[in-house]
Amino acid sequence: MSIRIGIYGYGNLGRGVEAAIAQNPDMELVTVFTRRDPAGLILHTPGVTATAADKAADMADSIDVMIICGGSATDLPVQTPALAKQFNVVDSFDTHAKIPQHFEAVDAAAKEGGKVAMISVGWDPGMFSLNRLLGEAILPQGTAYTFWGKGVSQGHSDAIRRVEGVADGKQYTIPVEAALQAVRNGEDPQLTTRQKHLRECFVVPCEGADLARIEKEIKEMPNYFADYDTVVHFITAEELKRDHSGIPHGGFVIRSGKTGWEQENRHIMEFSLKLDSNPEFTSSVLVAYARAAYRMQQEGACGCKTVFDVPPAYLSPKSAQELRRTLL
Amino acid sequence: MSIRIGIYGYGNLGRGVEAAIAQNPDMELVTVFTRRDPAGLILHTPGVTATAADKAADMADSIDVMIICGGSATDLPVQTPALAKQFNVVDSFDTHAKIPQHFEAVDAAAKEGGKVAMISVGWDPGMFSLNRLLGEAILPQGTAYTFWGKGVSQGHSDAIRRVEGVADGKQYTIPVEAALQAVRNGEDPQLTTRQKHLRECFVVPCEGADLARIEKEIKEMPNYFADYDTVVHFITAEELKRDHSGIPHGGFVIRSGKTGWEQENRHIMEFSLKLDSNPEFTSSVLVAYARAAYRMQQEGACGCKTVFDVPPAYLSPKSAQELRRTLL
Repeated sequence: MSIRIGIYGYGNLGRGVEAAIAQNPDMELVTVFTRRDPAGLILHTPGVTATAADKAADMADSIDVMIICGGSATDLPVQTPALAKQFNVVDSFDTHAKIPQHFEAVDAAAKEGGKVAMISVGWDPGMFSLNRLLGEAILPQGTAYTFWGKGVSQGHSDAIRRVEGVADGKQYTIPVEAALQAVRNGEDPQLTTRQKHLRECFVVPCEGADLARIEKEIKEMPNYFADYDTVVHFITAEELKRDHSGIPHGGFVIRSGKTGWEQENRHIMEFSLKLDSNPEFTSSVLVAYARAAYRMQQEGACGCKTVFDVPPAYLSPKSAQELRRTLL
Repeated sequence: MSIRIGIYGYGNLGRGVEAAIAQNPDMELVTVFTRRDPAGLILHTPGVTATAADKAADMADSIDVMIICGGSATDLPVQTPALAKQFNVVDSFDTHAKIPQHFEAVDAAAKEGGKVAMISVGWDPGMFSLNRLLGEAILPQGTAYTFWGKGVSQGHSDAIRRVEGVADGKQYTIPVEAALQAVRNGEDPQLTTRQKHLRECFVVPCEGADLARIEKEIKEMPNYFADYDTVVHFITAEELKRDHSGIPHGGFVIRSGKTGWEQENRHIMEFSLKLDSNPEFTSSVLVAYARAAYRMQQEGACGCKTVFDVPPAYLSPKSAQELRRTLL
């Protein structure tokens, strides 16, 4: 019997989850919940139609896991606790500083409903968090590094577009190669913000805009760019569309640690991702953890969980025996 | 209260575990069990003495987890099931093909004793297995690659030393850089044994030995070298000692997968290790999983487990709350 999935929200992430479900024969999509008019939403999956978001409660018996695909700023803090009372849920809440309070709210709701709610699933938080934990647990005497990119930062792209005279723009976060190498060489460097990442901006100016002023304003923008080496390229709308339409991302989690009575042996653990599509990869992680959420709840678990709480075997459709035989 | 650890066997691995315990303030070493005369075994840890292996049963109440540091060929198939009846145990059983039968034997013993037995812990099997599982579960439409090295292969070094006229020698397994790059570029290459790894041998010949014959015999040795491009260097005993005394190892697990309705987006997940000391890193993994074994048994689990069954949070001394706040 398939695991019956509902998708709540149909932006980039929701569409990615829909495509990911099609890659997993043990899952089926029941419906997509939308706040728009469901009649106007044509899904990609044959035979499946959208449902009005306010009808979700009526479908509690026909959905095993709800994958919530809203945004972290305003959607998930409301949606995840609300839905966790009735559904096993998975979300990708990624405001790191607010994870503890999100956890508390979701945990109370999920326990009330006897459901499993898996929060902050994706790659960071998610796969990167898992690797930070493994590195620290295995090499307690060591240093941890996380680098992001090369990839598109939505927040920084938005910041560029708010500058006066900017018609459109995209920002890439790029790890500094020399810093990566120093870490991999076991030099345990202490790196400033500027030494870790570059910011490269592709900006489409409005007609007649003052390019020098735009460049200066971007480079001096506090929080977003002032602490980084920032490169600004002015391009046309056509070039932006042609060369920068993708949403690639990725990054590196590196643990550099020492063992031995004299700390004489150095070990480097490195996990990296190179993703053509940030939302589609995140979606693929969400779907694997939906499988885990369903199984854990079937076995009697309830409450809020994170990637730290999930036995890896629950992510795979293979049996424990098959996993040991083929992957161990 | 500390987790009380016993070490069973005091070779490279056992000594590595002893050093690793000293890096983990929530653990303490109770004793090392040895088949040699315990009076002759001086441990590194102040105040701790060795115990005869046949006295282990008497100490069941003073040890929370026994870390078994024997070899996979003949020690662990006997020791792990025997000890799992009385102790929570962790071993590094690494004969991949025999894992299912080892699992069955250990599972029966651990269930008889109400203990948790964690087998095949280390980096391969272990961390590499975990990453193979994650890659397959997250990117089901993809290809998996494992490369080993650069590192010393004990089995291949032993094979060299069995060649007539060889006084001593060491063999390094080296991943082929072009193959690694093709995988990272998303080319999904089909790689032969020869295309994946090189074998580099450093050989100390006996006086007057026929070097050409030795080289030919090594390069044509079935299973070990015949299927590989093999390089043989003749060096002196002094050079071997000076330049090749370490036991480095490492490798790469790479998942290359595609998402999207048209498989239009490529993603690369890569996990790699670069280890100065293979046994010390393995020991560090064993110790982290000893913590997990203890906790899982405290919470009522029993039977045989592998890295696939362990919620990552159990590996860390931090509380779940602290993990979410600092690492998620």
